[in-house]
Amino acid sequence: MSKNKDFINYVSNLDLKKLSYKELANLSEEIRAYIIKKCSENGGHLASNLGIIELTVALHKAFNFPTDKLLFDVGHQCYTHKILTGRSLDNLRKENGVDGFQKRRESEYDCFEAGHSSTSISAAMGMALERDLNNKNYNVISLIGDSSIGNGLAFEALNNIQDFNHKIIIIINDNDMSISQSVGALHNMLQNIRLSPKYLKMKSRFRKKMGKNKFTRSFFSFFKSIKDGVKKLLLRNNIFELFGLYYIGNVDGYDFKEMEKAFKKAKKKKSSVVIHVTTIKGKGYNLSETSNVSSWHSVKPFDIKTGKSLCSNPKGTIAIQDVYAKALDQELSENKDAILINPSTSIGSGIDYIMKKYPDRCFDVGISEEHALTFASGYSLSGKHSYVSIYSTFMQRSYDEINHDVARMDVPVTILVDRAGLVGSDGETHQGIFDESFLINMPNMAVCMAKDYSEALSLFEFSKTYSHPLAIRYSVGYYKDELLNKRSIKLGEWVIEKKSNSSICVISMGPSITNLLNKNLDVTIINAIFQSPINIKILKSLLNYKHIIIYDPYAIKGGFPYQVLAMLKQLNFKNQIHIISLENQFIQKGTIDQQEKRLKVHIDDVVKLIELIKNE
Amino acid sequence: MSKNKDFINYVSNLDLKKLSYKELANLSEEIRAYIIKKCSENGGHLASNLGIIELTVALHKAFNFPTDKLLFDVGHQCYTHKILTGRSLDNLRKENGVDGFQKRRESEYDCFEAGHSSTSISAAMGMALERDLNNKNYNVISLIGDSSIGNGLAFEALNNIQDFNHKIIIIINDNDMSISQSVGALHNMLQNIRLSPKYLKMKSRFRKKMGKNKFTRSFFSFFKSIKDGVKKLLLRNNIFELFGLYYIGNVDGYDFKEMEKAFKKAKKKKSSVVIHVTTIKGKGYNLSETSNVSSWHSVKPFDIKTGKSLCSNPKGTIAIQDVYAKALDQELSENKDAILINPSTSIGSGIDYIMKKYPDRCFDVGISEEHALTFASGYSLSGKHSYVSIYSTFMQRSYDEINHDVARMDVPVTILVDRAGLVGSDGETHQGIFDESFLINMPNMAVCMAKDYSEALSLFEFSKTYSHPLAIRYSVGYYKDELLNKRSIKLGEWVIEKKSNSSICVISMGPSITNLLNKNLDVTIINAIFQSPINIKILKSLLNYKHIIIYDPYAIKGGFPYQVLAMLKQLNFKNQIHIISLENQFIQKGTIDQQEKRLKVHIDDVVKLIELIKNE
Repeated sequence: MSKNKDFINYVSNLDLKKLSYKELANLSEEIRAYIIKKCSENGGHLASNLGIIELTVALHKAFNFPTDKLLFDVGHQCYTHKILTGRSLDNLRKENGVDGFQKRRESEYDCFEAGHSSTSISAAMGMALERDLNNKNYNVISLIGDSSIGNGLAFEALNNIQDFNHKIIIIINDNDMSISQSVGALHNMLQNIRLSPKYLKMKSRFRKKMGKNKFTRSFFSFFKSIKDGVKKLLLRNNIFELFGLYYIGNVDGYDFKEMEKAFKKAKKKKSSVVIHVTTIKGKGYNLSETSNVSSWHSVKPFDIKTGKSLCSNPKGTIAIQDVYAKALDQELSENKDAILINPSTSIGSGIDYIMKKYPDRCFDVGISEEHALTFASGYSLSGKHSYVSIYSTFMQRSYDEINHDVARMDVPVTILVDRAGLVGSDGETHQGIFDESFLINMPNMAVCMAKDYSEALSLFEFSKTYSHPLAIRYSVGYYKDELLNKRSIKLGEWVIEKKSNSSICVISMGPSITNLLNKNLDVTIINAIFQSPINIKILKSLLNYKHIIIYDPYAIKGGFPYQVLAMLKQLNFKNQIHIISLENQFIQKGTIDQQEKRLKVHIDDVVKLIELIKNE
Repeated sequence: MSKNKDFINYVSNLDLKKLSYKELANLSEEIRAYIIKKCSENGGHLASNLGIIELTVALHKAFNFPTDKLLFDVGHQCYTHKILTGRSLDNLRKENGVDGFQKRRESEYDCFEAGHSSTSISAAMGMALERDLNNKNYNVISLIGDSSIGNGLAFEALNNIQDFNHKIIIIINDNDMSISQSVGALHNMLQNIRLSPKYLKMKSRFRKKMGKNKFTRSFFSFFKSIKDGVKKLLLRNNIFELFGLYYIGNVDGYDFKEMEKAFKKAKKKKSSVVIHVTTIKGKGYNLSETSNVSSWHSVKPFDIKTGKSLCSNPKGTIAIQDVYAKALDQELSENKDAILINPSTSIGSGIDYIMKKYPDRCFDVGISEEHALTFASGYSLSGKHSYVSIYSTFMQRSYDEINHDVARMDVPVTILVDRAGLVGSDGETHQGIFDESFLINMPNMAVCMAKDYSEALSLFEFSKTYSHPLAIRYSVGYYKDELLNKRSIKLGEWVIEKKSNSSICVISMGPSITNLLNKNLDVTIINAIFQSPINIKILKSLLNYKHIIIYDPYAIKGGFPYQVLAMLKQLNFKNQIHIISLENQFIQKGTIDQQEKRLKVHIDDVVKLIELIKNE
């Protein structure tokens, strides 16, 4: 196993069913070392994968995959599963490597795909139904984290299981971690159980005593007279039993014997079962186990010895999200009426320190994107500002709350849409390419994007005084760390960044403007700061151009580009319109640069088009 | 109070705080008679309003509105609240009358607005936060039904309350009813409590005894040693206590004394409280209390004595939704692999009888639109068909599940999108005008609409053989009850319904095609059966027309019209394009005909435009 390829061969050819607990433990340690090494080289979801190596190995020993079906909720924690099924992590999350999530096209062992949270219980129910309607016989297993199960979708599924006669097995991987922090009653309940394993032993001892001791028996009969008496309550000691699930737990996620016993029991049960497995975040890599765990959730390449990241901001730049963090920090410090809401992505969005700094006005609501937006709407009915920091892709979960509660009631909620546009290695489930089109098609909603540091701060300034729904989109990347003057921006403002006498005009937005300006092209360049509303006055001034190029690499064509097209048509523009924007498709992983080139929305594609036009 | 106006004056000028329980009961009966009368004249949400008259009166007596804030979840059950605050139901849900939901513009007593379910707890939390940050002092009350609380959004809010130090009062109006039927564990739990009021009395008696009896005290000390012992478990006897809410219940929703006591207690508590009030659906109107209750949820004008509807299908027509019900029925009978999923709107969509006929393959998942779509995706990963019947407006809740689970995994889920387009009297929260634009902008998703009975059946036939995501949209209305030949339809099919030598071509879809044909206009008429994908071949054949009119009264412009516009642009179409479609706005109530005229998307607007062009 000196070479990695050999390691994958060796591991995937093992017959786990024949291995002893000791051998399984050793194998797990080997896998652990491999995952740490590969994540240190490629980056990846380190901590969550380290936590469930033993659990995954135990599952592969106890069940028969791919006949049995294993659904990883979200799916970022499936590295051990990939290794056991013969997939190397050599180019993990790279264009030519394995995906960071389960993918059906990669392996028959991946029966399902996700990327967003809390879909696995609903999907498992669908798969179990299909199995039973066809009298097939296998297990369908949803492996879900303690944070993901606190989401509304997971709840809707749980709430339906009692009426559903098709067995699934739910395994809760309780590692007391989410991308940022675990919150909510469900999490607290899990923690209570987790912290008192004694409790469950006591419970079972109590049950036995009840039967033996004469006096307690008679006392128990008093309880019996209460319809939903103590026994039932004891069985209902957690929400899962309330939902009609048979509860097995809590099981030590590093004890192969205990896990085997639990899985055997779960297999025997005729009805749906939940197995509560406790694991440790970042298990086995000292730095991720002891330091700020959440910062090890998703890592870039790092030095194994020191834990230090091998990546840093390009010299003289500032991460775009850090600009908004700074602005938020200042606003929360100056304006006691401002609040900030975030659905468990505060570390990813670089606002963790702000959440801690203003605890009375900052709310991590857990993986609850729906609640985040309606909560904001409720607050802002007062006319006061709420800021919601959210990833574009996860915001899809709150489409209706944005439409029905924020846009329709026309309240001053500013959505800071992080990771808008292409996102790189997370792949097709995480691209932030749909929000622009659906936000633009919502009444009362203004949508904008900043080209640089100063403009970002200026847009933030604008948000403070704007009393309607506003989405500030920002992409993954960096601004030049150079702060020019903050200026006052008006709703719908566009800027003529460069005026040329050529017959070509490019309309774009965000950092692309800087890229365009850097190319020193002899074309007119319009910075459409607002993608909605559209600046009709400026559009009118462009009607004499022979060619208008709409360049939006941050979204699909159906959003801003088609809105501009429609307006140009309405203004009776007769000449050529060219759109360089994303086709309506799911986009596979790669670096953002690779993706832009593959999809022909790279700055070079704009340059090429301009050359082509000029040479016509 | 012989006249209705006098009645409203009389009621709204009463000082409820001075009335005796007996007088409150009498007043409630007067309001009940008024609501029955007005709903029999105008239609409306009868049963739910009849159930909570006393509860609403008791709330208005106990609290100080509008200083205290009352949020009606969904809001369709606020008629008594409107009457008590001086609003006549004379033109209920009509263009010039009061709205069927809470509306801020109507009254300062309406602090909040909804229409979709389960938003009130999140919003109440936002309002309570704003109150406390400003040291204001009043109560914020969420009044929510037993079905609405089973939705994921409500759960996300509940799951957050434990960590939230701002008090709200949640009143569960438990009338054991949703639009169709109540399902899920939460509902069952409520019912258990509801059916055994004795239980709670026993509980409190047990608590007292615990303290007095020496032996039970010592027995209790054994319990004490169990960290999460019996006492805690007793307090956690339902999910609300698990969520850290103080539980008061169950309270008889017709006992003013009991309600007053409960409200007083709730006001005193420093932390958030849930009051479980049991009411009876359709209370006091014999026919709605005893017959199929759900059919009295939303009524059209009816005869009070007989309960018979005063409205019927226009002669010789069939309701569009009934066509799809028939097709579904047949498919479920013939194809044992087909399943049907519905989020509690089966009566509204006319498929209730089907759900009962094939109980093993039909699933009412409760108000769980998110779960509905991911459950369907899980089933259809097998390649087998699932049908999801859902209202357009409620489907907004499942945007991400359609995108991430159905479209991305490219599975054969057919969504039957009921109430697409304008919906009439339900008003701005219920218009089905956004789904077309967001579905068209999802990869892999085909979108279509049928012009008549035969075409609807043909589209349904198409769905059976199509192995990708498909949305069949259908509007409120009727088809001629005339079944011509079912024909085989191909993906992306458009039909030249009428070929004219004029310079004008109209592209439209759905029942509008019939309206256009009936006008006998000398123009070419294209039936764009599929709004996505677009039929490029036919579009290419239209390039010589001087005028292309895109007529889509079923959605906002950003959907199909802009897609056609973009394609025409790409095909280098040089002549005039006219779009008659909905502006991007929230649309107030009225009849559909009134709305179409108001918004200038009526068939007459198309005729006018054609005349205008011809007279140019």
